[in-house]
Amino acid sequence: MATQIMKATLGRLPRYLKYLKSIEDEMPTISATTISKALELGEVQVRKDLSAVSGKGKPKVGYNTKELISMLEETLGVDKINSAVIVGAGRLGRALLNYSGFEKYGLQIVAAFDSQIEKEESVGDKKIMPMSKFKEFCLLNNIRLGIITVPKFAAQEVCDKMLQSGIEAIWNFAPTALIVPNHIVLQQENLALSLAYLNYQLNNK
Amino acid sequence: MATQIMKATLGRLPRYLKYLKSIEDEMPTISATTISKALELGEVQVRKDLSAVSGKGKPKVGYNTKELISMLEETLGVDKINSAVIVGAGRLGRALLNYSGFEKYGLQIVAAFDSQIEKEESVGDKKIMPMSKFKEFCLLNNIRLGIITVPKFAAQEVCDKMLQSGIEAIWNFAPTALIVPNHIVLQQENLALSLAYLNYQLNNK
Repeated sequence: MATQIMKATLGRLPRYLKYLKSIEDEMPTISATTISKALELGEVQVRKDLSAVSGKGKPKVGYNTKELISMLEETLGVDKINSAVIVGAGRLGRALLNYSGFEKYGLQIVAAFDSQIEKEESVGDKKIMPMSKFKEFCLLNNIRLGIITVPKFAAQEVCDKMLQSGIEAIWNFAPTALIVPNHIVLQQENLALSLAYLNYQLNNK
Repeated sequence: MATQIMKATLGRLPRYLKYLKSIEDEMPTISATTISKALELGEVQVRKDLSAVSGKGKPKVGYNTKELISMLEETLGVDKINSAVIVGAGRLGRALLNYSGFEKYGLQIVAAFDSQIEKEESVGDKKIMPMSKFKEFCLLNNIRLGIITVPKFAAQEVCDKMLQSGIEAIWNFAPTALIVPNHIVLQQENLALSLAYLNYQLNNK
């Protein structure tokens, strides 16, 4: 990969991939101009996005379509799907467990766990299991991603348990700053802040 | 307000406000250095954040504490709490209805609506009402913020209904691009993308 990719860029990559796959048989090469018109995106943005994934297209020729597809797939990690688990099967945890659209980014949520649950339950085609099965499940299934949707007071304990179970990346919805070693990838979600920002824009428009 | 404030800055403002309120009686003036030490934030960041809210402190004196408090409150809109409603009382809608922490940013979610519901229900101390009551409720209660947590296919219809009901700012969780007039504030939430970005960081660390 050429450079570290920004979140906004990453969000557009599935659109490029979908489009390129739809035309790969007819167009062995494709220009940024053609892509930008087809997807109604600015040409400068398309060039910038694609150069982050694969370098520049050739002048007058553009990109090799199949090469660009495989670079997009590699960046998105489509070829190696990572599995994630949720701890905290309250409303938010259950909502995420069935939230659609994760697969196109190369990952799937495979199960949820909750300390309040004694017997396995199902939500759609996904299972919710007691916390006592957590570590074994993660190790057996090589789980590397954990999502925390427990109340604030329980979040650090759950985080520690995740790290002991081989998890290397954590998406935390609890409104508390988690302490993790440097090699762990941590992403703090703050839904209140997203709404606050909308409110701020409303008050200042 | 001096300038348009960034989302990350806005996220720190409640911490400044909470701290300043805790010391306002003892410290009529306060320096950025003191604030940065108390909150364990970088001094450059504190100066930048506060200058976006209130301009610079006086050399050797710092900020007038009470003035800074009132400017923070004004920016956060704490004095004029906006009410928001949710349309779509599935798992995600119900999770947001009871998500804590919105109040400190000057807003509250007052009710949810759902086209599948015929009789009023309660989730905690909040009500879920049938969609037939939506417009009247919004107009009567001067609702300006709407949150969409319906499936993709229903999102534009709900959005249109919100605009007809006086709503001016929309937070959309449905994975679809909504069409709104220019004067409407629109924020698209993409939870799949947040998880995808974590996955990307995991694959590239």
